[in-house]
Amino acid sequence: MNFQINKDTLLNNLIVAQKALSNKTPNPALQGIKLEVLKDHLVITTSNSDIAIKLTVKDASLAVKSEGSVLIPGKYFIEIIRKLDGLKVQLSMAADNMLRIEADRSDITLNMMDLDDYPELQFSEKVKSIKINVRVLKTIIRQTAFATSSIENRPILTGVNFKIDGKKLIAIATDSYRLSQKEIELNESYEALNIIIPGRSLEELIKVLENNNDQVELHFDHSKILFKYNNLLFQSRLLEGNYPETSKLIPTEFATVIKFNKENLSTAIERASLLSSRDGNNAIVKLALRQDNIVEITSNSPEIGKVLEEVYPVDEIVGHPFKIAFSSKYILDALKIFNSSEVSVNFTGEIRPFIIKGEYDENMLQLILPVRTE
Amino acid sequence: MNFQINKDTLLNNLIVAQKALSNKTPNPALQGIKLEVLKDHLVITTSNSDIAIKLTVKDASLAVKSEGSVLIPGKYFIEIIRKLDGLKVQLSMAADNMLRIEADRSDITLNMMDLDDYPELQFSEKVKSIKINVRVLKTIIRQTAFATSSIENRPILTGVNFKIDGKKLIAIATDSYRLSQKEIELNESYEALNIIIPGRSLEELIKVLENNNDQVELHFDHSKILFKYNNLLFQSRLLEGNYPETSKLIPTEFATVIKFNKENLSTAIERASLLSSRDGNNAIVKLALRQDNIVEITSNSPEIGKVLEEVYPVDEIVGHPFKIAFSSKYILDALKIFNSSEVSVNFTGEIRPFIIKGEYDENMLQLILPVRTE
Repeated sequence: MNFQINKDTLLNNLIVAQKALSNKTPNPALQGIKLEVLKDHLVITTSNSDIAIKLTVKDASLAVKSEGSVLIPGKYFIEIIRKLDGLKVQLSMAADNMLRIEADRSDITLNMMDLDDYPELQFSEKVKSIKINVRVLKTIIRQTAFATSSIENRPILTGVNFKIDGKKLIAIATDSYRLSQKEIELNESYEALNIIIPGRSLEELIKVLENNNDQVELHFDHSKILFKYNNLLFQSRLLEGNYPETSKLIPTEFATVIKFNKENLSTAIERASLLSSRDGNNAIVKLALRQDNIVEITSNSPEIGKVLEEVYPVDEIVGHPFKIAFSSKYILDALKIFNSSEVSVNFTGEIRPFIIKGEYDENMLQLILPVRTE
Repeated sequence: MNFQINKDTLLNNLIVAQKALSNKTPNPALQGIKLEVLKDHLVITTSNSDIAIKLTVKDASLAVKSEGSVLIPGKYFIEIIRKLDGLKVQLSMAADNMLRIEADRSDITLNMMDLDDYPELQFSEKVKSIKINVRVLKTIIRQTAFATSSIENRPILTGVNFKIDGKKLIAIATDSYRLSQKEIELNESYEALNIIIPGRSLEELIKVLENNNDQVELHFDHSKILFKYNNLLFQSRLLEGNYPETSKLIPTEFATVIKFNKENLSTAIERASLLSSRDGNNAIVKLALRQDNIVEITSNSPEIGKVLEEVYPVDEIVGHPFKIAFSSKYILDALKIFNSSEVSVNFTGEIRPFIIKGEYDENMLQLILPVRTE
């Protein structure tokens, strides 16, 4: 193997590949980056127990003297390429199983790993596939993945449930304290589908997708999903099991609907959460609709102090005075992902889940379970 | 106590006062901020075991209804003021030993601490004092404090030694592996002085000094130093003991002097330190002057790989080929604080300390001890 390439081109691709590189893995070979150089392109592969990435790099700067494949310690290789001076970098095999890296006045040799230890990865296209605009896919992920569970006691809840029915795609995430649901209309009609994608895989995927109007192809079988996007193949395992049926949890009739300026509501809750009683790590905050139609956000931490915030709703309120308590983190997380500057909070009862919607966040809803106090 | 003040004015002063606020202190009263409101000004005081800060705030926005003093939990108070909406904030005593904080539509009460528990602090001016331009003082601190020791086994080395002799001020810091020395000329002649200021106090001080042409007054007695700067009084304890005599360590005759572009030298050393043998946490890097007058920076980590960097000196070299090894951290730390883009590295021998100087860093020198290898 012996080739030259523009240093920044190589670096930018390595930064994408790094997303599937694991520092701690039971299989040491997965700490390596696989480089395959062919006549007119370079293939970069990384993988860990959740995801695998394959990048095909075709670049005018690529000059191949001899083809070949190597497995290189990933962390060191990326750090070296990042710190090199000069426009181009030359990579070649040196004696004693070393990779030689030359750029500007640097001459670096890096011990290689045994390519035979690297697992055989299949990035094959699957029978079923759909196409989504990359911006739409990013929105779906941004608006749902945050609501997955980070604790592993119910593994299924660490994933986002994607359901397709005809032209409709619904994505749902819940950690059993809050739920996020986003629905979009696809360009074509597809066969019914119901899969669960690990939230962490989606969080990594979103980092490497750009903000353009390209399409992403999603290919899946029963155990894997493959995202095809320009020169990137991004594969994730799927979670096995049945995702809970959440539709019955979502109330459809509401006793009280209050429309807020999103910013006013979140800053009031943020201040209240500074001095609040705690349920574990969560700050508990109370919301009350007063007789005079002003909303009070309150908190009380007997040892430290208390907060009373008045928030004026945007519109006339439909409903009677009531009180509800909730974990401030869940409502702040939810408010953050709305694009709308005004949100409607829909209450059913003092100990019933409430939902948040926004005019400019079509077909997206956030559900939050209240907590009981006293 | 009852007064109103511009919120940002209060916040900006609290951020300065926070530098002397301790989270973990044997005396819980020191987690408090002392506020004293007088007819036309506000005094904010904080202190920990090393430093004490007193700010006198006179501001057109200050409207005092009634004078008084309180001690408030510092962390919570600053977080609340930071998150408030509105231009102004009203602070008043409420029943039950509470401080009431009102701004915009927020009404917050914070349990107060017992003012009687707060230590009596003296910020009195001392018999001896000198004046230094604030930019000059910041340069002295920036160029020396980083070289103090962070381990407490020789407490004296955690401080910076300030010595005044007539119009000359010398500041010295060393952790016994490297030494930094900066000399400046004062505007007036002063009595001889030799004190040791804790490096950490200086690191906090530098954060609250601005970049203008104001003077800082330094007042000292045997145990304390007081910095007077505009509305700020910043006091630090001094370290007791005798600072080691370092002047004999600094070589004055050199076998080889090499002038480098600072950037070229540091990036080469940074790359070499990626793959280097370790002395504890320190990456060991070697420098060699070759027969052809090119400098080689090398490192070798048998398990990972090796680096060879060529650095072309800026000028003709005076001296013979030689080799030296050092900890890359010390030389990178030192290079960072030079304003000059070219630096001269002055070598005496392969196992003798070397010093770095820069044309535009007058009267400043950095000394580094080499390490023995093989």
